Amino acid sequence: MNLPDFFEQDRLAVDSALDRLLPAETTEPVSIHTAMRYSVFAGGKRIRPILCLEAARIFEPDARPDTSPAMHAACAIEFIHTYSLIHDDLPALDNDDLRRGKPTCHKQFGEATAILAGDGLLTLAFQIIGESSTSAERTLAILQEVSSAAGTVNGMVGGQVADLESEGKRVEPQTLEYIHRSKTAALIRASVSTGAISAGAGIADVARLRKFGETIGWAFQVTDDILDVEESSAALGKTAGKDIAQKKATYPGVFGVAQSHEIAAKLANDAITQLDSFGERASRLRALAEFLVQRRA
Amino acid sequence: MNLPDFFEQDRLAVDSALDRLLPAETTEPVSIHTAMRYSVFAGGKRIRPILCLEAARIFEPDARPDTSPAMHAACAIEFIHTYSLIHDDLPALDNDDLRRGKPTCHKQFGEATAILAGDGLLTLAFQIIGESSTSAERTLAILQEVSSAAGTVNGMVGGQVADLESEGKRVEPQTLEYIHRSKTAALIRASVSTGAISAGAGIADVARLRKFGETIGWAFQVTDDILDVEESSAALGKTAGKDIAQKKATYPGVFGVAQSHEIAAKLANDAITQLDSFGERASRLRALAEFLVQRRA
Repeated sequence: MNLPDFFEQDRLAVDSALDRLLPAETTEPVSIHTAMRYSVFAGGKRIRPILCLEAARIFEPDARPDTSPAMHAACAIEFIHTYSLIHDDLPALDNDDLRRGKPTCHKQFGEATAILAGDGLLTLAFQIIGESSTSAERTLAILQEVSSAAGTVNGMVGGQVADLESEGKRVEPQTLEYIHRSKTAALIRASVSTGAISAGAGIADVARLRKFGETIGWAFQVTDDILDVEESSAALGKTAGKDIAQKKATYPGVFGVAQSHEIAAKLANDAITQLDSFGERASRLRALAEFLVQRRA
Repeated sequence: MNLPDFFEQDRLAVDSALDRLLPAETTEPVSIHTAMRYSVFAGGKRIRPILCLEAARIFEPDARPDTSPAMHAACAIEFIHTYSLIHDDLPALDNDDLRRGKPTCHKQFGEATAILAGDGLLTLAFQIIGESSTSAERTLAILQEVSSAAGTVNGMVGGQVADLESEGKRVEPQTLEYIHRSKTAALIRASVSTGAISAGAGIADVARLRKFGETIGWAFQVTDDILDVEESSAALGKTAGKDIAQKKATYPGVFGVAQSHEIAAKLANDAITQLDSFGERASRLRALAEFLVQRRA
């Protein structure tokens, strides 16, 4: 999966900021900083930070990505996303050996280092939020958005727990919705809302963008479920059909592939409707939303 | 180990606040909230939150513990301490079955839940810091103190990595110092400094208390090492002699028991000297510091 070319400038700016905000590989203890960097630079497409920068751009259209007031929030969320992948891949959880075609963190560095590298990234995320260039009030609002999205109550960790507990079981549609909204949509919602907050958006605009982010995040995860069924491992860069093999709760599993396509399209449409009042200022965010559900990998 | 009776009021207020700030056991996903509560209420003595409340009391002597402006910081640090114990006890790290006489989190709930309960507590810690009753500026200063103390660069996670890597090796005194200061002293330093910041202490006073906290935290860990050698398992409520069995880097291992006693006493004295300028206002904090190095369990 590659993002449209016009997001390349964002991606480069994000990678550069991630590099700057992570401790150097030569900083003691070397082993953990090497592991943290390995996983952060293992080929992520930076969807969340780009959503964050693009949401900020609605309110600060002239801000260059590399000097965006949203950059700390964007990188913090990428660190949280990375930590969640490291911990999800552990033997006690999804037990994955490969991630984006490379050995997972625990395969490369051992389980102890992987657990602690995840802990270190989560902690660093909150540290760099505290060092944001925005006002103290905006920074606290960002802290609230990110910590609740990453937490156990309707947040990422809660979604991961429900996901693990649903394996091998017949799940109800509302459980499936809970899992996808908590595990994936919540952090994508925070990516968008924190970008807006960083750039000084008002309460009503933040609420609209929160709804956009939540809904496009949900559509993104439904699309992910569909691709796991429809595409080859080669196209995905990870093992296709893994959801079925692990008996995960998925949209195709509960609704079938055809209806899942309809659900993803409807969610994406609902999401994009939230951007109407922003007109042309949201055109890049709109393009990104369309890409996220039309991608084939 | 029991704290002197006159801290009982603090401890009760802390336990009550921890209970209020944790999601209920009935909140979905029930399994993780049950596990988080199990570990938080597994018998901790609340040393860190009490240090935090007592540091605040220097500047707000009339504040009742239950309405202390430092309570969110105090509880956040206890959540971080608890998460670190849950992850340290995992099979891939210290592989402990018992903690304070009870099954460790992963023995009770399984490894996946234990990993995620630790993640959930760390995330919740930063969420409740963001909901502190202090000003936005003070809250951001607290966020900075806590996140750096808990992190990988001279912080708790970094100390844990160095501790694991030193097992079975002959360590130099400076490595031993790095481990103890990072793994234990950093978070105790933050307990004291965030209490002071919450209550509006000025920069010079915060710096003095930071130094006090760092030094008493270091003395505390040296004392822990000594007790592991000198006391019985029954007295400690955990397996005595475990450091030697696991070939951990300890002060008695490097300096012998007698010299370790001298080091602990000198550190405690250095710490308490930092309190001189506060006079009688610091008498409770002084008593707590003396207790931490004179305890026999």
